[in-house]
Amino acid sequence: MNRVYNFNAGPSAMPLEVLREVQEEFLDFNHTGMSVVEISHRSAAYQAMQDETETLLKELLHIPDGYHVIFMQGGGSMQFILHAQNFLRHKGAYVKTGSWSSKAQEAAKFYGATYELASGEAQNYKAIPLLTKDTVDLQPDTDYVYITSNETIHGLEWKTFPKLGVPLICDMSSDFLSRPVDVSQFDFIYAGIQKNVGPAGCVIAIVKDEFLEKARTDIPPYLQYATFVKKDSTYNTPPVFCIYFVNKVLHWLKNLGGLDVMEARNKKKAKLIYDVIDNSQGFYIGHAEKNSRSLMNVTFNLQTPELEKRFAEEATKADLIGLKGHRSVGGCRASLYNAVTPEGCEALVDFMQRFQTLHS
Amino acid sequence: MNRVYNFNAGPSAMPLEVLREVQEEFLDFNHTGMSVVEISHRSAAYQAMQDETETLLKELLHIPDGYHVIFMQGGGSMQFILHAQNFLRHKGAYVKTGSWSSKAQEAAKFYGATYELASGEAQNYKAIPLLTKDTVDLQPDTDYVYITSNETIHGLEWKTFPKLGVPLICDMSSDFLSRPVDVSQFDFIYAGIQKNVGPAGCVIAIVKDEFLEKARTDIPPYLQYATFVKKDSTYNTPPVFCIYFVNKVLHWLKNLGGLDVMEARNKKKAKLIYDVIDNSQGFYIGHAEKNSRSLMNVTFNLQTPELEKRFAEEATKADLIGLKGHRSVGGCRASLYNAVTPEGCEALVDFMQRFQTLHS
Repeated sequence: MNRVYNFNAGPSAMPLEVLREVQEEFLDFNHTGMSVVEISHRSAAYQAMQDETETLLKELLHIPDGYHVIFMQGGGSMQFILHAQNFLRHKGAYVKTGSWSSKAQEAAKFYGATYELASGEAQNYKAIPLLTKDTVDLQPDTDYVYITSNETIHGLEWKTFPKLGVPLICDMSSDFLSRPVDVSQFDFIYAGIQKNVGPAGCVIAIVKDEFLEKARTDIPPYLQYATFVKKDSTYNTPPVFCIYFVNKVLHWLKNLGGLDVMEARNKKKAKLIYDVIDNSQGFYIGHAEKNSRSLMNVTFNLQTPELEKRFAEEATKADLIGLKGHRSVGGCRASLYNAVTPEGCEALVDFMQRFQTLHS
Repeated sequence: MNRVYNFNAGPSAMPLEVLREVQEEFLDFNHTGMSVVEISHRSAAYQAMQDETETLLKELLHIPDGYHVIFMQGGGSMQFILHAQNFLRHKGAYVKTGSWSSKAQEAAKFYGATYELASGEAQNYKAIPLLTKDTVDLQPDTDYVYITSNETIHGLEWKTFPKLGVPLICDMSSDFLSRPVDVSQFDFIYAGIQKNVGPAGCVIAIVKDEFLEKARTDIPPYLQYATFVKKDSTYNTPPVFCIYFVNKVLHWLKNLGGLDVMEARNKKKAKLIYDVIDNSQGFYIGHAEKNSRSLMNVTFNLQTPELEKRFAEEATKADLIGLKGHRSVGGCRASLYNAVTPEGCEALVDFMQRFQTLHS
């Protein structure tokens, strides 16, 4: 089997063990005599699998009582709309750390008043702002503060989360399950699964019951998070294959030792690449400030766009895939999600050093 | 391999040949060295696959110029909302033939004025109404007429489609690609793929450009069909695995001879079951009137709910799965989507006859 090193920003690398398991049982899900893509979402076999998925997630993230886990479709783009439709009554405060938080605010504007609580735009998104109760200017009647835990395009990641005394909504799409988080700090968390957790086509959300009680009920039931909680994510047909795949990934995470172990592994992996950048004497130029560096998406530039293009092309020839930066900003980017192996990172280190030797 | 006969109403049986192919290449999509769930939706390999999927669909359905094919998430429930958000300006007319058309109208009411053009509710949804320009009472300023080509719960299916001189919107979720249709009669067609075409998690829509020009543009871009047309369904990450699976199913359909062949096969399959009902001397009681009978969902009752329960249970023991009617109406139902084989139908015939002999 010719397996490449996959540094795509999402959809992205998945654990080989999981892929093999999915493949092996693809024609017969749990002795039902049907493929997982053929089973009814109203069957006991499906329900048991979904229940287990929720339980595993609660275990791995230590989700406290008073929260519900739901599965939805539509990706992050749909959540940019839904969080506002559900929770925006007076004012929504947004922390603009890059493209994704920015898009969320743009969509929210269709449903009510929003404002920027902080923005890194003027500095071209090089750092996550430090927000404390004393330093931020929270307006009265703020329903929530919205943040993006990891910005894939600029390569920034929140290291600690702000405690501002108002409900906190967080888009964790690109670093979900890459490290432990204290769920009790948040009122609403959501994550498109297509980075760390599974195939594109599903969002996992974690809703605080108390916050949900304040949500709007004058929108169609299908757009209400409360419907998904009440109907246990099967108000309509859920994306069965995605949830099944998530189940496998959660087992894999648990077997590896959980999120502490995963975080340590991810730190080690990211350090390998950042060290090459820091030791390159300016050949590789890291984009993010050190204390805001993402463990998931390492973004950097070379001296010229031509050299960056060459870097990505030669990497591809060496079976290192997906190193081109996002088309909106250019540059280079290595995405190091959970399933990217330490060996993959070492191969990238090796390539980066060879490339530097050849081109400096 | 112990493969059961799967009569589920959706998600439902998929072609065994397709399942095998997906399984075989699950670790390496098209020699990329990545699983299909790992490839980037911005890669050439993905784009080529999506393009081919669109081309195959255009071929199979003879989609004329002036239409676009798009892929979305959210299932039929999301379309109940989106068709109205996009196309409802003055009044939407709904033909109520069962639960699904009814739900579409309920959701549309959030976005504007709607009215029932016809309803089979008083007769407990036993027949599709005959609608002609002369007999229907179309109100002025009707933006569109909305129909559901096949109602899975009551087992009704439109045989010919109405020509009323206003745009026609059709939910084809449950009989999409089961027979040829004249796309030019419609202005907007959509279908959740989880019956005839693939795993739950994707909707295929066919939009007439001329109709789309009249759509609202004052809603968030992600909710506009125009965005999906303009961005070729990759405004955000599409449900890659679903679209890939659809691609395989379309190849399978083409190799079998296309939609004429599929329709003939489906007619033969359905006739097998309806014949048992009609020849059972009242042991099996068909729900739908003969000229409205669905080729996809054969709905019937037995003398008592107890006997119906026993029927489904004994069928399950004989590896005939999914014969219980929808929980909202009870009774029995055999769903005979494209991938249900003639052999499966013969096994069901055999079982029904044996069950009748034992219990009459």
